[in-house]
Parts: sequence; structure tokens; C-alpha cells
Amino acid sequence: MSEPATKFLLGEDAIPTHWVNLLPELPGEPLPPLSPQTGQPAGPDDLTPIFPMGLIAQEVSSEPEVPIPGPVRDAYKLWRPTPLYRARRLEQALGTRARIFYKYEGGSPAGSHKPNTAVPQAYENAQAGIEKLSTETGAGQWGSALAFACTLFGLECEVFMVGSSYDQKPYRRSMMETWGASVHRSPSELTAAGRAQAEHPTGSLGIAISEAVEVAAGDPRCNYALGSVLNHVLLHQTVIGQEAIAQLELAGAGMPDVIVGCVGGGSNFAGLVFPFLRAGADCRIVAAEPAACPTLTRGVYSYDYGDTVGMTPLMPMYTLGHGFVPPPVHAGGLRYHGDAPMVCALVKAGRVEARAYRQNETFEAAVRFARSEGIIPAPEPAHAIRAVIEEASDGDEKTILFGLCGHGHFDLAAYDAYLAGKLEDPVFSESDLEAALAALPEAPAI
Amino acid sequence: MSEPATKFLLGEDAIPTHWVNLLPELPGEPLPPLSPQTGQPAGPDDLTPIFPMGLIAQEVSSEPEVPIPGPVRDAYKLWRPTPLYRARRLEQALGTRARIFYKYEGGSPAGSHKPNTAVPQAYENAQAGIEKLSTETGAGQWGSALAFACTLFGLECEVFMVGSSYDQKPYRRSMMETWGASVHRSPSELTAAGRAQAEHPTGSLGIAISEAVEVAAGDPRCNYALGSVLNHVLLHQTVIGQEAIAQLELAGAGMPDVIVGCVGGGSNFAGLVFPFLRAGADCRIVAAEPAACPTLTRGVYSYDYGDTVGMTPLMPMYTLGHGFVPPPVHAGGLRYHGDAPMVCALVKAGRVEARAYRQNETFEAAVRFARSEGIIPAPEPAHAIRAVIEEASDGDEKTILFGLCGHGHFDLAAYDAYLAGKLEDPVFSESDLEAALAALPEAPAI
Repeated sequence: MSEPATKFLLGEDAIPTHWVNLLPELPGEPLPPLSPQTGQPAGPDDLTPIFPMGLIAQEVSSEPEVPIPGPVRDAYKLWRPTPLYRARRLEQALGTRARIFYKYEGGSPAGSHKPNTAVPQAYENAQAGIEKLSTETGAGQWGSALAFACTLFGLECEVFMVGSSYDQKPYRRSMMETWGASVHRSPSELTAAGRAQAEHPTGSLGIAISEAVEVAAGDPRCNYALGSVLNHVLLHQTVIGQEAIAQLELAGAGMPDVIVGCVGGGSNFAGLVFPFLRAGADCRIVAAEPAACPTLTRGVYSYDYGDTVGMTPLMPMYTLGHGFVPPPVHAGGLRYHGDAPMVCALVKAGRVEARAYRQNETFEAAVRFARSEGIIPAPEPAHAIRAVIEEASDGDEKTILFGLCGHGHFDLAAYDAYLAGKLEDPVFSESDLEAALAALPEAPAI
Repeated sequence: MSEPATKFLLGEDAIPTHWVNLLPELPGEPLPPLSPQTGQPAGPDDLTPIFPMGLIAQEVSSEPEVPIPGPVRDAYKLWRPTPLYRARRLEQALGTRARIFYKYEGGSPAGSHKPNTAVPQAYENAQAGIEKLSTETGAGQWGSALAFACTLFGLECEVFMVGSSYDQKPYRRSMMETWGASVHRSPSELTAAGRAQAEHPTGSLGIAISEAVEVAAGDPRCNYALGSVLNHVLLHQTVIGQEAIAQLELAGAGMPDVIVGCVGGGSNFAGLVFPFLRAGADCRIVAAEPAACPTLTRGVYSYDYGDTVGMTPLMPMYTLGHGFVPPPVHAGGLRYHGDAPMVCALVKAGRVEARAYRQNETFEAAVRFARSEGIIPAPEPAHAIRAVIEEASDGDEKTILFGLCGHGHFDLAAYDAYLAGKLEDPVFSESDLEAALAALPEAPAI
């Protein structure tokens, strides 16, 4: 009765009515994407073959807020608002003076934050008369989310799933098929891009993106959908941070001293962090990534392709080179050579601090979290948990907020390997970087 | 903004402070359990070798309400109150005039309603100085829940998992191990009960119960925990129905016309239904079970053992005979030869109506639900969904409430088989029943 609260819930009325667009207030010079054909700034016309105008308008919008369409907000009600938790049992287990809060997105039907953008993407495409979406998926979280969103709006869905994840997580495929999608192991024989990458049997997000873009570019009924990196994707995720601000208020905690998120393409991180930046939060911000694919901590800041083959516009970002195929670590959602340009600009400006963690120390943190808080985290946010434990161990009194962007129900083979002491722990090799960077496209220095 | 609400949430203050004990107001003569040794009514002393006094007191309590201990209520906050949903998209897909609501328990860390009782069971045992709990698990939902609860209260946990589920759901095992439990495939070589059942390699709940009871009976540090059937387990689940009453009120729906739940041992069903009976709800109540293990629709009402070997007290219930080993359908949680005596008494009295469904029609309903509401249901509550679709198809305007007691994230192999048209569809055989009933123990007729 008088026990302190653990969970801070909001009613459906508190689902945000607008997304927060941070583009107009990013630090540094605005750096446009460049056409892969001409090397000139890419405009909306470069995107129309694979994206609907509704999303292109969001991609380039300079409005500080973008309204959320009614049918999207209505679909959000299936799982939003998501809960904010105070991690009291973890705090106790750590013996920390820090107050730890986490925003949990794993309660969505697909099990992560990804439906926040899958739903508006499916909606805008359906509005534009498109009948089918193609996409890639790493860990399977994004593919599941898009399959779910497509079934809500009556679209077909075709997913290229990164080979290593396809093998590790067969039930992610079944989940997508249950929602009616068709799923292929990437690299596949179905596309020229896939056939050209047969020497990388475990695949990568970059390769799978090339395959999905090729399918969309060749079929007028079909558009392409991306689960991270692009401005409009990050925009859609800002429902997370907006709710978190209201919930911290409810908890009597006010603004946090530190915000921590994991970064693969950057969308869950941005979704949590951007609304706090808009609100002028004077806090430290930490981005956690895997040591096997340390884009923000070891990459170079340069224009590069978003995919492996070089079909997408060139984007300004930290990159390990579009040819880099990360080792098949279990955090499949973090196996990406680049990162969202908006997140990279904040790292470049020093506003966001990046840290890389090994796979075993990450799973150690995940098991610790599971045994105190109950929820089994996906390997991706386990990187954030690892950083939070570090932050909470300096003896200081402070408020930490982190994003628990998904559950690990489809990642238990990795937990199995960790508990058996059989988890490989690859680390990034300098020679890999040299080879990959040598293949960077010609583009203006930034 | 003005879209109708989909989800009805309550704050932590609305977590019930008491459990609802329906025992004092059950219809019919009170029928005590009987000692397997003497055939005489079993008293608390017959239970002390494997249960703590705190739970025994709840098992036999005649108080109409039982207070929930503070630390239990505190742990409930990790996932309670659970949401009540209006299934607007399913209604639309069915074109029904019925209003359909569901109470979703799949958001708990273990993915089902089972932690509602695992937590108080672990708590009472820890209070009594017990250091370890042994148990069985069918689908893995109960074993996961107990592993989770044991980690919260610092207990060891040993789980005997029914062979067919162990093979179908390897990641349920990993989940239990992540929470620190040890897990054995049942029938195992570790117990006399297991060694005696080598001719049933797929196992059954009855066999696994015998194994777990044998372990607890032979170790003074260790007690046994049961996930369903017993009065105190049903008692703990009544948080579900109490919250649902408050949420239907919030939804402006008042009392339902029909309540539907699936029945394996009966705990999720009872947890949803009993508070409505206590509140005097004048509604129809439907229990859904598998045609391959049709205890309520085809069993006989008789005293029988709770386990296969015959170590537990004799209980008055509908039974297919304690020797019946149901075929390995995917709804592992419903593969039990008997049912909770309290639920059976309500069926016997005509207050609850039972229906049995085949495996394929059940999965058809599950996929229909997943493609409209988003959540992929466990195979067990998919039986309830099948019954709800039937109820909603008669053209009548009415309010239906059903229990969605768990998600299907660990059941996707079964969805896979269904979508590929390869799902077996065993049905109960009359000759099975004759053989099993011939082995019923001697006991007073009821």
C-alpha cells in the first residue's frame, strides 16, 4: 500500500500528438545527402522511386514539430503509452546511490520500439496507393514490426533477413510469417545485389538493404521501408522521449543527469534523447555500441553509402566503410557500418559521448538485469544496461534514464551460449577498417 | 485525439490488496481431498512435507478474502496492473455486433499469468526458511514464472519440463536458466517416478508432477510448488478478475454478458472468473479446452490423483484418468488429465459451460487475432479466442470478456507448422478413456 512506486503509466490521452523534429536545431553545418549518381545534393525527386511523398516531406521537414496522423495515433494505442520503470531492484543489487529509470518499449506486439515508425511508414505508403513494402532486418525486430504494421494497413510485406540472424533466430521468421510477410535469408539468390555477395554468407544490414532497395526500385507497386538511420525514422521514434519526460515528472524525478541508449542505426537512441534536447535538458548523453562494430568510437566522419552495394544516397556519418561486414555478434540490430546522420552530428559536436562494449560483459549486465528486474533484455539494449551499471558505480547520487528498447525472447540462444561460457567475443580489427575505408566513395570532405 | 479508447490502464494503487476466496460459496457439498495412503480426508498435516504453512492456510481458508502480503504486492508492481483491451480491430474483422474485451497477462516478465501465483508461493516458502523449490512445467510458462519468482526471493529452483515441450520450446529452458533455475527433461533418469515412465517419452504434466514431488519429499531444504489446480493457486490468480471489473467500469461497459477462458488446470480461468462470481455477475461463463485432452467435456467426475504415479492427495474433479498421457499438442499448458476441483464443481453445478476445440481451428483463430490485434497469443488462450469468435458470430449485441493469459513468443514452431499445413490434429479416443478410467483409484462416489 505504502510501497514506493515502480512503474509510471500514462493514459492513452498522453500519447503525443506531434513528433519532435530536431533537424532545424542540429549543431554544425547542414549536410545534405548526395545523389549516388551525380554526387550533387539529393532532393525529394531522388527518393520518389522508393518512398512516398508523405515520408519524403517528413524526411526534409524544417518544422520543429510534425503532427501524428489520427490513424497512426489510433494504432499506437495497441501498445502506447509504454511504461517507465524505476529500477529499484537493480539499484538495490548494485548498492548504488543513483536512481535508475528505464523506458520499456518491449511491450509492443513486435517486442521493440520499431513499430513506432513501422506504423506511420505503412500508413503513408497505404495512403499513397502503394500495395507492398520491401525491407531488410537484422535482429528481426524491424522486420517483425513492419510485418505487423503492414497487416494493420493491408499491405504485402517482403523481408530480407540478415543471414546470421536468420540462422540464430528462426522464430523471428515465423513471427513475420504469422503476420503474413514473406521472408528471405540474405544474401539471397533473388537479387543481383544478393548474388554478388555470396562470399559473405552471414550477411550484413548493408547487404540486406541493397537487396530490399533493388526489389522496390524494380516494382512500381512496391516501396522500400527503412527501420533506422533516416530523419523521418528518428522523427517517428520521438514518441518515446516525449512520454518519458511526462513520466519522470510523474515520478517526481524531473530531468535526468544522464541519458543512456544503445546505437545501431540510431533510431531508438534518438527517439529517447531528442525530446530531452528539445526541452533543453542539461544532461550528459551516452551512446553504447558493440566493440565488434564500433561505428561511433572507431569510425571516420565522412560521406558514405547507407548500403553495401552503393544504391542509396551518400550520407554524412561516422562509418566503418560501407564494405565492412561486422562479425555475427548477437546484437544483430547493432551490426551496421554507419549511423544516423542526425546522431552522428551530435557525436561530432561533442554533445553525445560514445562507448563500446564487448559481447560477454554486455551479457553479464543483461543477466544481472534479468535477475533483478525480471525482464530479459534484447542484446542491443543490454549494451545500454552495461553503460548504466558503469555510470551507477561511481558512488555519485544522480538520476539515470535509459532506453530498454526491446525484450530478448528471440535471443535466448545467445543467453544459452553466454551461460555455457561459449559466447564468442570478437573485437574490431584495425586492418578491417583500413581495407573498408580504402573503398569510401569520392565525396566532399566534412 | 477523439478516437475511441483501446486500452484501459490502472495505476499501481489499483493492484488489489486482497485475493478473492470463492471456496466458502461454491455450489454443492464440500468435498475434501483424500489422503492417498488412508483414503480419509487429508488435513493440513498431509501437506506439510511439501508445502509451507502459509500456503496450506490459504489452501483450506474459509475466509472470503485473503490479504496480499506487502512484498508480494510490491513484486506485482513489476507488471501489474495488466491492461484490459477493447478488441476493436478484431470486432471490425469479424463484422460482429458484439463488444469484445480481453485482459492481457502476457506482459509479465515470464509472459503469462503464472507469476501471479509464483511470486506469493516463492515468498511464503522463503518466509518459512525453505531454500529451494521443485516443480514441473508443461508449456514452460509455469516453470519460467517460478524461476523468475525464485530469483526475486533468493531461492534455488529445479524444474521438470514435460518432454514434448522441452523438445518444442528449447528457449523456454534458456529463459529459466537465465533466471538461474536448473531444468530437466521429463521423464528423467533422476527420479524413480521418471525412470518408471520411460515408455512415455513425450511425458505429461502428471509424470512431471510425480518427479517434482519426489524431489521435494526427499529433501528437507526443498518444497514443491504447483502452478495450477490447487485452491491457493486459483486464489492468487484472482487479481486478474478484480482488475478486469475495475477496467470494464472504466470502459463504461459494466458487467459482461459472457466470460471466456481456456482451462488446463484451471488457474487462469478461475482468476478471471471468480471475482465476477463474487460480484454476483449474471453472465454466461465458457471454459475452452483442447479436443485432444477434453477433461471437462469428456471426463468423468470422480476422485483421482493429481499426478501419474499417485503420490498426491485424491481430488474431486473431472478426470480422464491419472494414467492418461495426452498427445503432444502445442497447448502444453492444457495437457492435464484433471482440472482444479473448484472449477470442476462449477461445471458440475452447471454454472460453467465447457467446450472443446481442435488444434487447427484454434490456430486459425490465433492467426486471425494476431493479424487484427497484433499480439501473437499462446496456443492455450487461442482456445478461448476460438470460443470468442464463435460467441461473436451469432449476430447478437453483447459484451464478451476473455482472458488472454499469455503470448506465443515461444510457440512459433507451432505457428510455423500450422501455416505450412503440417499441424497434427489429434482427437481424444474413446478407447484411451476406457483404459485410463479402469485405473481410477478406489474412492467414495461423488
